[in-house]
Amino acid sequence: MDLKQFVKQSIGRWRSQRSAHHLAFAHFEKVRSTIDIMALDPQDPGVLEVCELYKIDPASMESPFRMTWEGESDWDEDDWDKEEEEEEEQELKGSCILVPIPDPESPQNGQLLRDRGYAETIPAIGHYSLNTEGIFTLITEYDRAAAEERIWFATPNLRFRVSQIKTRDGQGVTTASFSSEIRSLSS
Amino acid sequence: MDLKQFVKQSIGRWRSQRSAHHLAFAHFEKVRSTIDIMALDPQDPGVLEVCELYKIDPASMESPFRMTWEGESDWDEDDWDKEEEEEEEQELKGSCILVPIPDPESPQNGQLLRDRGYAETIPAIGHYSLNTEGIFTLITEYDRAAAEERIWFATPNLRFRVSQIKTRDGQGVTTASFSSEIRSLSS
Repeated sequence: MDLKQFVKQSIGRWRSQRSAHHLAFAHFEKVRSTIDIMALDPQDPGVLEVCELYKIDPASMESPFRMTWEGESDWDEDDWDKEEEEEEEQELKGSCILVPIPDPESPQNGQLLRDRGYAETIPAIGHYSLNTEGIFTLITEYDRAAAEERIWFATPNLRFRVSQIKTRDGQGVTTASFSSEIRSLSS
Repeated sequence: MDLKQFVKQSIGRWRSQRSAHHLAFAHFEKVRSTIDIMALDPQDPGVLEVCELYKIDPASMESPFRMTWEGESDWDEDDWDKEEEEEEEQELKGSCILVPIPDPESPQNGQLLRDRGYAETIPAIGHYSLNTEGIFTLITEYDRAAAEERIWFATPNLRFRVSQIKTRDGQGVTTASFSSEIRSLSS
């Protein structure tokens, strides 16, 4: 599977179940959400703006897309502090543009530009690789943290995603999460 | 990483957080458990019995081990029927012997013999492969279902495990689960 096929197979509406494990306190969080992934035209103004932001030649992109999500979270306990709860609320609904830039010499690897991250609400460049088993790995470094995600298809209509948030030095993993995403045949 | 290193890194006591997604009803289940993985001597009577059971020459094994687990599950709802609840209870505590038999021509792949499965409580042979990223994939076919697991280390002291239970024909995935396993430094 190449990147183009991977993006193509991702296009659509997905019903997602996500479990987050907050490792230090063995805390579970569950989120149900709807995710829409839509192909964008390479000439889309938002896509060209992302290329401009990172000074990347638009000719080098492949299969740009938009991801939109809307979810609801159930915390297990009500002792979570207010500030974190608000931060969390913000992440539960959003949209971003993603622009893959394959490495010309090794097209299974490349950069993934985003107009804003979904772990941190700032623009971000991730580095991806797609292996022979069809597992897409994305590593994104932020100021204070790094995110690593692995995404793969169990069937054409079922996608798994494992994410971990690490401290910037890569030593500590604070949160691990798992999503199972089922293609929604009614939209 | 080869199989011997993978097993070696797995030895110890792990504190596990597991989330299961029952896909048809978007149901979440959470389980906290303690997992002990201990190396076994190739001459251990239990190990030799497993080889005998499958008529495999004990000389072809590598790094046999025992896995023991004990957990507690929190169901979200109390409308689960009694029979399934009892089945589930049985799975929450157990122990099995695992005997890897690497393929002599391609040692990153092989068979994994078990004296009983942990998805189904019967003996089982799984097929494993270990890729260049250190992801261990195990596929086990049962009479009515097939289980596929991927296990990898995020750090030497943090292991992730994604499992899915498929119908035997491989078409439908009924349950997906994710475990984050942290090495317990006090034992």
